[in-house]
Amino acid sequence: MKRRITIKDVAKAAAVHASTVSRALDPNSKHPLSRDVIERVRKTAKRLGFKANAAGYSLKTSRSRLVGVIVPDITDPVFPPIIRGLEAGLERHGYAALLANTDGNRQREADLVDIMTARGVDGLVLASVVYHDRLLKSRALHGLPVVTVSRHTDNPQGSCVLHDESGGFRDLLAHLSSLRHRAIASIAGPQDLSTGRNRRLAVERCAAQMKIKVVSTIVARAFNEQEGSRCMEELLATRRRFTAVVCANDRLAVGAIAALKQHGRRCPQDISVTGFNDMAMAERLDPALTTVRVQHYRAGVEAAEMLVRQMQQDTRKRVMQRIVLPVELVVRQSTRRV
Amino acid sequence: MKRRITIKDVAKAAAVHASTVSRALDPNSKHPLSRDVIERVRKTAKRLGFKANAAGYSLKTSRSRLVGVIVPDITDPVFPPIIRGLEAGLERHGYAALLANTDGNRQREADLVDIMTARGVDGLVLASVVYHDRLLKSRALHGLPVVTVSRHTDNPQGSCVLHDESGGFRDLLAHLSSLRHRAIASIAGPQDLSTGRNRRLAVERCAAQMKIKVVSTIVARAFNEQEGSRCMEELLATRRRFTAVVCANDRLAVGAIAALKQHGRRCPQDISVTGFNDMAMAERLDPALTTVRVQHYRAGVEAAEMLVRQMQQDTRKRVMQRIVLPVELVVRQSTRRV
Repeated sequence: MKRRITIKDVAKAAAVHASTVSRALDPNSKHPLSRDVIERVRKTAKRLGFKANAAGYSLKTSRSRLVGVIVPDITDPVFPPIIRGLEAGLERHGYAALLANTDGNRQREADLVDIMTARGVDGLVLASVVYHDRLLKSRALHGLPVVTVSRHTDNPQGSCVLHDESGGFRDLLAHLSSLRHRAIASIAGPQDLSTGRNRRLAVERCAAQMKIKVVSTIVARAFNEQEGSRCMEELLATRRRFTAVVCANDRLAVGAIAALKQHGRRCPQDISVTGFNDMAMAERLDPALTTVRVQHYRAGVEAAEMLVRQMQQDTRKRVMQRIVLPVELVVRQSTRRV
Repeated sequence: MKRRITIKDVAKAAAVHASTVSRALDPNSKHPLSRDVIERVRKTAKRLGFKANAAGYSLKTSRSRLVGVIVPDITDPVFPPIIRGLEAGLERHGYAALLANTDGNRQREADLVDIMTARGVDGLVLASVVYHDRLLKSRALHGLPVVTVSRHTDNPQGSCVLHDESGGFRDLLAHLSSLRHRAIASIAGPQDLSTGRNRRLAVERCAAQMKIKVVSTIVARAFNEQEGSRCMEELLATRRRFTAVVCANDRLAVGAIAALKQHGRRCPQDISVTGFNDMAMAERLDPALTTVRVQHYRAGVEAAEMLVRQMQQDTRKRVMQRIVLPVELVVRQSTRRV
């Protein structure tokens, strides 16, 4: 077996001190080095086939340059673009992402945080938090920087990247109002999540302001198609009259439309249905979904940037941040004039 | 700051030797320990708040327990279930996944492999390989175990987990034959990928066996909706007569159906269209897609198991493996009798 090329070999060949090699190859180094030196060291390292030893670096600096990313379920089309954005943002600063899924199981989230802290991650991005989150208040995190994305907790100091949910539902309700809908129903998301709570409140508040009556609200147990269908069944069983159903996300809307079809009701001819997120394929569904476009990729990039800043700050000087990204109404075929 | 709890603290409190603590806490340890001892050590470690130091472990064993997972694009609905399966399979053996996307860019794939080897990954799962892959033959991998998933290279010795593509297209063509289709067109995938090559060959071979004529084949530059639309435009421009279009994956089929609609042609009344993969949402499209269901999650699990076995074997004794998972025809609304 070939001897491993060390930092000393590179230093000798490039005629610089070993510490200069470290600094030249460290994307996060704050020590000023001339471009020429950096270029020379990089070329020499490449020519010799030098690979930085991540474990050695990690023990020396007690930084792993790893970030734990915990999502509820990567097969939910909302999360892949967030993860792409995170990857792009983290990579720019020399960090890599350890990814894991919780399936919405809180115990599993806690276990994953344990596994990831044991692996020495420098920070965490959580898309999996519940509103009353005990985990983030627990000792388990030991002051580790954490950013939540798309969701927030009841801690007003928590760093997070969010979407303008109230703005989105205001635009949706104004759209329905312009189509003369006066009595609507609402399929809300799980109330233990900030997204479920905020969107339900937004619907109720905006409807009241626009003199639209919410005749019934059914709360889904999860943001998925099965629950959308179940909630629509419940709505139809109430036998109350409504001309539109506002759903807390696209997957609920997809399930709701499927249940309508099974009952011989047409969308949008009989009942209009709206979603939220503008997930992939939303424009190719039958009918194409009227929804609110959310900037998932950008949320990922912003969360990465926010976390990197925090990881580079001293614990006591760490600045908490909250970013709310704008959204956009997308009108398609699932809504129609009454 | 609190002093870090070390393995020695746990050993003292549990009244065992430090090496026993290591073995008791190592999910991959092959040393026999009694259940009582394992239980006692685990409880003590938990009570004291001991966290294994991944970097220390890594330097000592020169194993990081990290696996690099490289996919073309996680926002393609085919990849999330594969990644879920990989995660489940890897976690069972105490490994975690570093995830990255290539966007189909070969240089980026090479760069990512560099980054991941520098981070000391113990193995790689590649869903991003091209058929004539130079990367896997290069020195860059230094004998690192590699498993490819869903795709394979021209190296017959490469370890891979595949889907029964020929079986799938045989079933699809038999289905079209039973619906009296005698002249079809084919939208093939990129020919630099095993999936593009295998599926095209399968369509041509099965069609010949079943006396179905393939009047035209258009090759897509990527497995996505835009290319599906472009290829369908080309097919329509040939003015040749065909009653069905067999597409190399679902996303191409979705684009093809959209292009048909724009030309005032209905699917399936005028032309039948088929996909491959049975991606999420395939049953909710307009029309619901006739396709072949592929076991993405299981492919991920199998790839993880295969890689773990290789990582635990001595380089010279490493056994290469090829698994081909069965597929299933799913008949929906996009195909109809001529």
